Amino acid sequence: MEVAQVLHMNGGIGGASYANNSLVQQKVITLTKPIIEEGITTLFCSTFPRSLAIADLGCSSGPNTFFVVSEIVKAVEKLCQELKHKSPEYKVFMNDLPGNDFNNIFKSLEKFKEKLRVEMETGVGPCYVSGVPGSFYGRVFPTRSLHFVHSSYSLHWLSTVPQGVENNKGNIYMASTSPLNVFKAYYEQFQRDFTLFLKCRAEELVEGGRMVLTFLGRRSDDPSTKECCYIWELMAAALNAMVLQGKIKEEQLDTFNIPHYNPSPYEVKLEVLKEGSFTINRLDVSEVNWNPFYNWNVFDFESEISESLSDGGYNVAQLMRAVAEPLLVSHFGEAIIDEVFSRYQEILTDRMSKEKTEFTNITISLTRKA
Amino acid sequence: MEVAQVLHMNGGIGGASYANNSLVQQKVITLTKPIIEEGITTLFCSTFPRSLAIADLGCSSGPNTFFVVSEIVKAVEKLCQELKHKSPEYKVFMNDLPGNDFNNIFKSLEKFKEKLRVEMETGVGPCYVSGVPGSFYGRVFPTRSLHFVHSSYSLHWLSTVPQGVENNKGNIYMASTSPLNVFKAYYEQFQRDFTLFLKCRAEELVEGGRMVLTFLGRRSDDPSTKECCYIWELMAAALNAMVLQGKIKEEQLDTFNIPHYNPSPYEVKLEVLKEGSFTINRLDVSEVNWNPFYNWNVFDFESEISESLSDGGYNVAQLMRAVAEPLLVSHFGEAIIDEVFSRYQEILTDRMSKEKTEFTNITISLTRKA
Repeated sequence: MEVAQVLHMNGGIGGASYANNSLVQQKVITLTKPIIEEGITTLFCSTFPRSLAIADLGCSSGPNTFFVVSEIVKAVEKLCQELKHKSPEYKVFMNDLPGNDFNNIFKSLEKFKEKLRVEMETGVGPCYVSGVPGSFYGRVFPTRSLHFVHSSYSLHWLSTVPQGVENNKGNIYMASTSPLNVFKAYYEQFQRDFTLFLKCRAEELVEGGRMVLTFLGRRSDDPSTKECCYIWELMAAALNAMVLQGKIKEEQLDTFNIPHYNPSPYEVKLEVLKEGSFTINRLDVSEVNWNPFYNWNVFDFESEISESLSDGGYNVAQLMRAVAEPLLVSHFGEAIIDEVFSRYQEILTDRMSKEKTEFTNITISLTRKA
Repeated sequence: MEVAQVLHMNGGIGGASYANNSLVQQKVITLTKPIIEEGITTLFCSTFPRSLAIADLGCSSGPNTFFVVSEIVKAVEKLCQELKHKSPEYKVFMNDLPGNDFNNIFKSLEKFKEKLRVEMETGVGPCYVSGVPGSFYGRVFPTRSLHFVHSSYSLHWLSTVPQGVENNKGNIYMASTSPLNVFKAYYEQFQRDFTLFLKCRAEELVEGGRMVLTFLGRRSDDPSTKECCYIWELMAAALNAMVLQGKIKEEQLDTFNIPHYNPSPYEVKLEVLKEGSFTINRLDVSEVNWNPFYNWNVFDFESEISESLSDGGYNVAQLMRAVAEPLLVSHFGEAIIDEVFSRYQEILTDRMSKEKTEFTNITISLTRKA
């Protein structure tokens, strides 16, 4: 499977679209906003570029697409007001794989600009937005053309399913029952991919340029920990149930593995240090509930959302469908999809009623060395 | 009607798509290739930029989309070989209105790059392609960010239907029966739009940067000349026939006008001189038959295409449908479209069998003054 050809969030704006099922991702961006603002503030004040080039890698298509860029532009404009500095011209590059729904992004461009104008009454520098298709595990931008790179909830996708995981039977990702070589293969693929990512961005960023990257990870050093494997183990459970009923062939399931990795903070740090082009400004770990309607403060509920919350299984199944459906369809075909996700929902509802279920996020802020 | 929201070539790759009905446009690009090559050669040899920024305005989506860019890159690579100069890095900006099918462009990006690699055995500089949505009757690119601008068969579209053409009854464009004020309104809209286009490009191009623009025009000074009005008059005839049968309301037809203008060489030259930012390197006028299967040399036929040629009316109706359908649908609704184009085809077939039917193209090569 060519991941770059297959992987993309569900397009359009329908019920199973990413656009309608990306609340968790939005929460994560809100959670990491102070780190993004810190990054752009330091960058801007150290160079005051006349033309500020910002790239959002893995921008996807939906309400989140312009969310980060808006926050970045607003932070810069506030700085300019405080410092009585002229607004820069913004070059905004929205990057994702070529299968992403760029048409949808472009159709909401005017709304984004209009909203910015309304929110920033004192004016905003001109914003030139373009769509840049291509895998970030390769060069996407011209040499030294970027000041600030942001990426949220994309870098946990690998460029390819690791080689040599044929014996990961019954599983679709690293799982507590996976053989040791599977963990090794996944980790090595992460190392190759993340190093390549850093090398490419080091060429594309100006000296002193900054990156703030957020992706799914784990706190534990143990890669078989529930915090990263569990959500996929439950999807595997749905698929295995369908194998038992003869609706999916066993060999088909055995040859399916998700091109995904949840690194630990140590693993991330190690690759950055080995690659050598970046200094680490900070590295944060945070949690967010699987259910986007679950309140920020993990054990508090807001009364008005408690009803949605009761449908947590549905929300999480929809979220996972929006991100994983194209991968599943490409391997298993269209026909089984509805049943997979209805079973997955049942399993999720059950588990979520009994356990605390959270995604672990890693956020790293980096500066391109001179 | 907001032209920028409505105007776009038919998307996708189906029977009525622009992608499958853009042979005339391809012929025109082939016809103007020497002028494009002359422009890029002079530009490149006068500055040798390390990073060459090329924009194609109104790139649309289909087989032509990467055709011009390929020719430009190949011309530069040949120069580099001859002069033993290092290949530049290419920044390629594909621009069109936000409703254009950019997804389709991005899906063919890998093929374009692969084809370039195969055709240029000695290697090609890295090519960074992005999609830039927005009307070229406004700023689309950052200040002084472009070296070379190309546009083919786009600039004859106006930003809006001219004001004050309410009395253009029974017509949908300037026609031999149009009142004088209609010609004046269309011409003034062209002047405003073309001047704004030049002003914006002057800000976006570097000093010495070049543009090669091709658009539909006319040789005659008379704006009611058949060479520009006839093809729309025949479409109006199809619509009028449906008014007579009560399938379209008369008021509906009376309020429909195409946002399009075919300037004369003199009118084009005048605006460039008045605007003042560009010197004119050359201004060419050429013809191409309405029927893309008609041979280059107007009165020769190639035997193998004579069969397709006999279906000239169909070809031209399809071509016009690919470019005008969204405008018609937005005004008249979906329901009448098939009948309009089947009537139009009949009328076209009849006229083309009796007359020489050609589009007139104007190609202008400009340099941004220092």
